[in-house]
Amino acid sequence: MREVFHQSLEDVQARLVEISELVTVAIEKATRAFGTSDITLAEEVIDADAIIDDKAIAIDELAIEILARQQPVARDLRIVVAALRMSASLERMGDIAEHVAQLTRMRFPERAIPKGLKNTFTQMGEIDVEVARTLTELLRSEDLALVETLRNLDDRLDDLHLSVFEKVLSENWQGEAAATVDATLASRYHERFADHAVTVAKRVAYLATGEWRPDTETINVIVGEAGL
Amino acid sequence: MREVFHQSLEDVQARLVEISELVTVAIEKATRAFGTSDITLAEEVIDADAIIDDKAIAIDELAIEILARQQPVARDLRIVVAALRMSASLERMGDIAEHVAQLTRMRFPERAIPKGLKNTFTQMGEIDVEVARTLTELLRSEDLALVETLRNLDDRLDDLHLSVFEKVLSENWQGEAAATVDATLASRYHERFADHAVTVAKRVAYLATGEWRPDTETINVIVGEAGL
Repeated sequence: MREVFHQSLEDVQARLVEISELVTVAIEKATRAFGTSDITLAEEVIDADAIIDDKAIAIDELAIEILARQQPVARDLRIVVAALRMSASLERMGDIAEHVAQLTRMRFPERAIPKGLKNTFTQMGEIDVEVARTLTELLRSEDLALVETLRNLDDRLDDLHLSVFEKVLSENWQGEAAATVDATLASRYHERFADHAVTVAKRVAYLATGEWRPDTETINVIVGEAGL
Repeated sequence: MREVFHQSLEDVQARLVEISELVTVAIEKATRAFGTSDITLAEEVIDADAIIDDKAIAIDELAIEILARQQPVARDLRIVVAALRMSASLERMGDIAEHVAQLTRMRFPERAIPKGLKNTFTQMGEIDVEVARTLTELLRSEDLALVETLRNLDDRLDDLHLSVFEKVLSENWQGEAAATVDATLASRYHERFADHAVTVAKRVAYLATGEWRPDTETINVIVGEAGL
């Protein structure tokens, strides 16, 4: 029974890695499409999100089946419950990649990236791709050093997120309302993507160490205090 | 054992109702603070969010304890898993009420509601309060007629959300960049609040009927297509 359980867990883990890989492809394509106004690439991301959603549902079904058949307790039970939550966060990351692609499609053939923010959004995109890759590696290897890597990437995104609002609210900002709306939404999407990754990373760390470091919850509060 | 299980479920249900009541108070105060620039009320919402977070964690712990001790299967198991997800959605609704309060605090002593949108945001606030009250009643009574009520309220919010962007992107819009940012974020918060409520309502309906109507997922896609 114990061996069956461990095989089941390995199956869950492999599926979480798989969905994280799909999310990585989605955010890579979405941010590239956003930067280059590539409508075909944007459509690919939008179409592919249904696959991520289906795979998240499949993980949930598998987790529920494990709970029903193997009735894990203690730490084993917490692992299965954590898997349910991680799949929800990964699914949400896929949604956000789709939102970035939708912004691109809506503005096409115009550029979705507002003037004067190209550099910032290029960096945000690159960091989000790095976030997704690091999360995939963390889920695969359970190398907890990567949790810190993710926190640092998230900090950099938070700084860039704040800088977008500083720029938009500065006297030099020449953008029209559409550019301001796009900058506001795109920046929030990029920042939320990394937040979800950190939430998943914290669950991995919690399962490995039993310690839940709630400090990253404050990020939202800080950003929220700046009204962003 | 069966009776113990049902008592446990009643306990979970009572706690979900309790947290939904706290969310109702939070959104009621947050939208009132947003409309009247009442900083004291905004601070109350921000401070009280930690209570909602704690209560959500307590529900999760109770659900995990039920899984471990009573090892439910089939429909019983699905109810407990659904409770874990409903608590996550309710917690997120509390976060959104807090975000609305933070927007109010950031602009204080100025008004957070952009000029020309007072009427729209007043309506959005009233509908969100109605959403929270209806959700509480649904969780308490399991009266599935209320699921449809929630869908209708959510549709009205989606329409208002679109109208905010039509206004902001129209030639008549005189708002500065700060007003555009505020309108964008506030409108998205109000709309997302109701989305989460509909997600919870769908889980209640699913548990009662076994049918998961995924049609409301399309709302996000539609709004996303408009880039909002």
